[in-house]
Amino acid sequence: MPRIVVEVMPKPEILDPQGTAITHALGRLGFEGLGEVRQGKRFEVAVDAVDDATLARVREAAETLLSNPVIEDVVAVRAAD
Amino acid sequence: MPRIVVEVMPKPEILDPQGTAITHALGRLGFEGLGEVRQGKRFEVAVDAVDDATLARVREAAETLLSNPVIEDVVAVRAAD
Amino acid sequence: MPRIVVEVMPKPEILDPQGTAITHALGRLGFEGLGEVRQGKRFEVAVDAVDDATLARVREAAETLLSNPVIEDVVAVRAAD
Amino acid sequence: MPRIVVEVMPKPEILDPQGTAITHALGRLGFEGLGEVRQGKRFEVAVDAVDDATLARVREAAETLLSNPVIEDVVAVRAAD
Repeated sequence: MPRIVVEVMPKPEILDPQGTAITHALGRLGFEGLGEVRQGKRFEVAVDAVDDATLARVREAAETLLSNPVIEDVVAVRAAD
Repeated sequence: MPRIVVEVMPKPEILDPQGTAITHALGRLGFEGLGEVRQGKRFEVAVDAVDDATLARVREAAETLLSNPVIEDVVAVRAAD
Repeated sequence: MPRIVVEVMPKPEILDPQGTAITHALGRLGFEGLGEVRQGKRFEVAVDAVDDATLARVREAAETLLSNPVIEDVVAVRAAD
Repeated sequence: MPRIVVEVMPKPEILDPQGTAITHALGRLGFEGLGEVRQGKRFEVAVDAVDDATLARVREAAETLLSNPVIEDVVAVRAAD
């Protein structure tokens, strides 16, 4: 069954405590050259077919049920590789 | 600052109650033609440069700190678009 | 409207990378005397009334839709304070 | 080792898409008498001792690293049962 991928990230101006914790943990664990980490969400939605109408429907779902528009951006809605 | 994207999904054989809740909710809200939803995580890691050594370091971080290998797969470690 | 609280934690033997990241971050940020952190979930469910039948129904929901029994324990189902 | 529990919930005025998905899923699955669901987080922090100083330190950690004050409230910091 084909799948559509939805990627959601916290808006740049929104604090992300989980990402901050990971950032500090990487430093403590000695990972060099890695900076700020931000944590978002990734969804895979099984669909009958990947066509424009279905992509539009998944985008609508992404903006209403998969993300919170006040604090998150839907950064991608795309066919799975 | 360049960024590396890490994508993590629950292993196919692992139950995903959050995805299941979304699957049922889509049905109830009348979204047609959308099937099972699986929910994973997406990270953006700021890096000094996107080279092979840094990608390898981010992959190591992904497998130790960003995911739980018992229940999750790291499905992608790649330069951000 | 009365509410029932459901508390879910990762099973003790299951790795918790988000908790681990927080543990390391606390160390790096100089919080003294704090040890391992584990991260779980907390739900509030609005109900018509908090009686035995409703608590049993919420427990059933907790074990099927709010947690993954393979990796998580439902540690409490109780009336909200 | 004693533990302190931290409970974090989305602020009442903040949309909670994960809770909304669960709310709809419960309806579709035939759970009667259950209304709106809100999803938050629950942490357990291992500590050397549960005294006032440690509780204050955990509260500070809760408000800086375990929650996002713009969208979440720390609803409890208490000794584990």
